[in-house]
Amino acid sequence: MAERSESEEVKLLGMWASPFSRRIEIALTLKGVSYEFSEEDITNKSSLLLQLNPVYKMIPVLVHNGKPISESLVILEYIDETWRDNPILPQDPYEKAMARFWAKFVDEQIYVTAMKVVGKIGEERDAVVEATRDLLMFLEKELVGKDFFGGRSLGFVDIVATLVAFWLMRTEEIVGVKVVPVEKFPEIHRWVKNLLGNDVIKKCIPPEDEHLQYIRARSCVLSLGFV
Amino acid sequence: MAERSESEEVKLLGMWASPFSRRIEIALTLKGVSYEFSEEDITNKSSLLLQLNPVYKMIPVLVHNGKPISESLVILEYIDETWRDNPILPQDPYEKAMARFWAKFVDEQIYVTAMKVVGKIGEERDAVVEATRDLLMFLEKELVGKDFFGGRSLGFVDIVATLVAFWLMRTEEIVGVKVVPVEKFPEIHRWVKNLLGNDVIKKCIPPEDEHLQYIRARSCVLSLGFV
Repeated sequence: MAERSESEEVKLLGMWASPFSRRIEIALTLKGVSYEFSEEDITNKSSLLLQLNPVYKMIPVLVHNGKPISESLVILEYIDETWRDNPILPQDPYEKAMARFWAKFVDEQIYVTAMKVVGKIGEERDAVVEATRDLLMFLEKELVGKDFFGGRSLGFVDIVATLVAFWLMRTEEIVGVKVVPVEKFPEIHRWVKNLLGNDVIKKCIPPEDEHLQYIRARSCVLSLGFV
Repeated sequence: MAERSESEEVKLLGMWASPFSRRIEIALTLKGVSYEFSEEDITNKSSLLLQLNPVYKMIPVLVHNGKPISESLVILEYIDETWRDNPILPQDPYEKAMARFWAKFVDEQIYVTAMKVVGKIGEERDAVVEATRDLLMFLEKELVGKDFFGGRSLGFVDIVATLVAFWLMRTEEIVGVKVVPVEKFPEIHRWVKNLLGNDVIKKCIPPEDEHLQYIRARSCVLSLGFV
């Protein structure tokens, strides 16, 4: 179990459908850290959120004994350094650097590109799908011979890349484009199966039906150009 | 001095005018690590660079005993974990999280916004300048009562934020707009003076005249819409 006193307070300001919020829940659950979850309405943000994250005004925010931390990759590293059981980052500095590199790549390249799939049509969408696939191919190669990005167990990159498995690949069903076809990405599909076999992941991913309904509603708003 | 064997090989593929390359030089110099510098022509990239950083094909790349690491923030953390003298990140997990948060903020917010100042004119430029100032105000507040972001000595955020001091504030002279006026940002100006008094910084920043000439040439290319 995690090293912690009974008196410590861990609170997460998050949003159930956000992969950035879910990744924090995965890490806390993996570490056995009890936390209070506070659901934020992102269309009507609480004054607490605005006060705790004045720079970005965004979830997730982790509050540990009154001190707030924002930015999900920063929060994940904080969790790993504060509760040291079940480490999520490798100990070796080079392997750690590689994990940080790929996590950043998922957020800054894959997410940024893939999110444009929703709301585009025709040739413009085809181009974004192609660009997303080119990026995913780097992850595909990273997974060869491994159960997880972290090797034999779930690690930092797996937790971050759950957005490919439980956001991007669910989005496919809504927009009607197979962005990650199994013929092209067998390793990624094998990895998704491994994720789904993991107890922490099973407990921490958004329930499929409600999630699809949420993505569908959001994709409709986006394609109408409201956001 | 740094803990290292004489046989180890440290090579940096960089570019003299790049603040991202210079920050790696600052960290290595601070740690007392000898390294070989390989200047890249970014208009005609070497096959070595393409091979070592196939994802981004960009400098800087640090090669340590044959193993390449890309992404300057990732490289800085690797350096800090590999050569442990003169730590650049705080030891306390919360302070470390704050340092990572502000470093990310400099790269993803300030740099991304400020780089648009060059090449814009009129109202469009005014809006970008205002947006940059709003972001810089967060840094201004962070510096109150401190010699450096790292407290009494140079740390992670200082090294990353040298791009404000030795890129953004030099760019002002070229584009003819005072983006960081001293009346509005007295703490940032005080911090720049502290930086200029630091021996490692003095050794590692690009020489002003050549740098201004480089920025001028680049700004001309940008404003003509060639890039």
